[in-house]
Amino acid sequence: MNQLVQQQKHYHQRLDGLLQQYFSQHVSPAARLSEAMQYALLNGGKRTRPFLVYATGEMLNVPLTSLDAPAIAVECIHAYSLIHDDLPAMDDDELRRGNPTCHIAFDEATAILAGDALQTLAFDILSSTQNEPSKQLALINLLSRASGHFGMCAGQSLDLLATDKVIAQSDLQQLHSLKTGALIKVSVSMAATLAENIDPVVLQHLDNFSAALGLAFQVKDDILDIEGDSEVIGKPQGSDLAHNKSTYPSLLGLQGAKTYLQQLHQQALHALDALPYNTTLLREFSDFVVNRHY
Amino acid sequence: MNQLVQQQKHYHQRLDGLLQQYFSQHVSPAARLSEAMQYALLNGGKRTRPFLVYATGEMLNVPLTSLDAPAIAVECIHAYSLIHDDLPAMDDDELRRGNPTCHIAFDEATAILAGDALQTLAFDILSSTQNEPSKQLALINLLSRASGHFGMCAGQSLDLLATDKVIAQSDLQQLHSLKTGALIKVSVSMAATLAENIDPVVLQHLDNFSAALGLAFQVKDDILDIEGDSEVIGKPQGSDLAHNKSTYPSLLGLQGAKTYLQQLHQQALHALDALPYNTTLLREFSDFVVNRHY
Repeated sequence: MNQLVQQQKHYHQRLDGLLQQYFSQHVSPAARLSEAMQYALLNGGKRTRPFLVYATGEMLNVPLTSLDAPAIAVECIHAYSLIHDDLPAMDDDELRRGNPTCHIAFDEATAILAGDALQTLAFDILSSTQNEPSKQLALINLLSRASGHFGMCAGQSLDLLATDKVIAQSDLQQLHSLKTGALIKVSVSMAATLAENIDPVVLQHLDNFSAALGLAFQVKDDILDIEGDSEVIGKPQGSDLAHNKSTYPSLLGLQGAKTYLQQLHQQALHALDALPYNTTLLREFSDFVVNRHY
Repeated sequence: MNQLVQQQKHYHQRLDGLLQQYFSQHVSPAARLSEAMQYALLNGGKRTRPFLVYATGEMLNVPLTSLDAPAIAVECIHAYSLIHDDLPAMDDDELRRGNPTCHIAFDEATAILAGDALQTLAFDILSSTQNEPSKQLALINLLSRASGHFGMCAGQSLDLLATDKVIAQSDLQQLHSLKTGALIKVSVSMAATLAENIDPVVLQHLDNFSAALGLAFQVKDDILDIEGDSEVIGKPQGSDLAHNKSTYPSLLGLQGAKTYLQQLHQQALHALDALPYNTTLLREFSDFVVNRHY
């Protein structure tokens, strides 16, 4: 795990440094809005999606500097979705990563706007770099498809409709493939888009890897919501249950969910086995996703 | 005014046709979300911003088909901003264009997501066309700068902070240049970006035109809020006053606001005078903006 911890820290610091640099160089005329955006963006977080952009990209020999824009952009989308998800009209959560959520720290209207502006920032940043225009355009298209009514937003809408209901496992799978899976997958596919001369078979294996990892991520989150320590996970344990959310443990039982998690873990590792690259870091990251305590 | 009415109808129908076609060809897995997006997008509206994209572009000899993506995209951004603006935590409006607002017709959570997904759709559509990548990228950059924490969202945040306060005219001007002006300006500048071999002096005149027009649009809106007929404007007359909003009439008096509107009108026409193109349509549209009853 040593290489993983070191690289997670390295990428995390790189991202936070870039975000701080961005906001110090781009001073919005609306100070409170900008403060709320930074509060949400720099409020800890595991930086899972930027990690996947950087780790996948470096594995495929993409220069780190080309990976910065997609890493920042996907984290902006993720951060905006959390702000809106936490709103009273959505999950009504007051704590996120152990800190007050954006609408508690600021106010609801500012939180809505901060989420909106963070989404915009993702596309601003992806369209501001000096890379090859057709590649930048491809990244924007991938990220928008993964975030909107064919991706994350669709998943969140299905999640709302699934609350207080028992749904089939296939529906739960679709819901999570969209709600969390789409951004995990696009983190990997954006990095692959920037690689030169990549074999289509490699793209397929990477897709299989990220699909399994994305689902594993969600199943683990559901398990942590039951077994996790509130202090460590940064939000009240049992909040899915309190919200009457459809989860894997509620559908498969806790043991069934754990077995499913192991299957997904194996699928992810199996997909990595097929790659003609040094997959150590992504392999260690997959282990981390299923074994983490937060 | 005949040419104007005809062209407004023509562009309006073109836009609505394209939007309907898009949603019939792109069926989201989240039906309710998609319904809410279409409800907001196809709920009437003057289509001011798409009109400016089309009219400016055609004046500059840009083919109509190249203008479709920016026309749709800017309307998606506008529609999303209205949904979020109407939310209980923001302006808490129940009527928009004479119909229930999105969160009344659906629910608050769906309205938040529909706004989010409409913003994404703007960038999805701008990155999906087959035009020259560097031009598409330029459009995305212009639109994101105009919408986010350097544009519309900044204006909305400043507007929230200006409620229940008396602010200076320069602050009100900045607020509106961002809140409504930025999208009006970007409609013109996106069209200009697609024109071939355009003189930088022309760009400057177009900028002057759209800046004056954007402000005129807002001043007229403020006046209509006092003098307009609720039935015709589609929302309760006097709602700015009820919300304690900073407006031009509250700052300059009703007569002062009318005088200022005439000045802005003249500035817009003056900027058009300087253009070596057939500006009849934009001129008639400027007259319409300051004389409209809705």
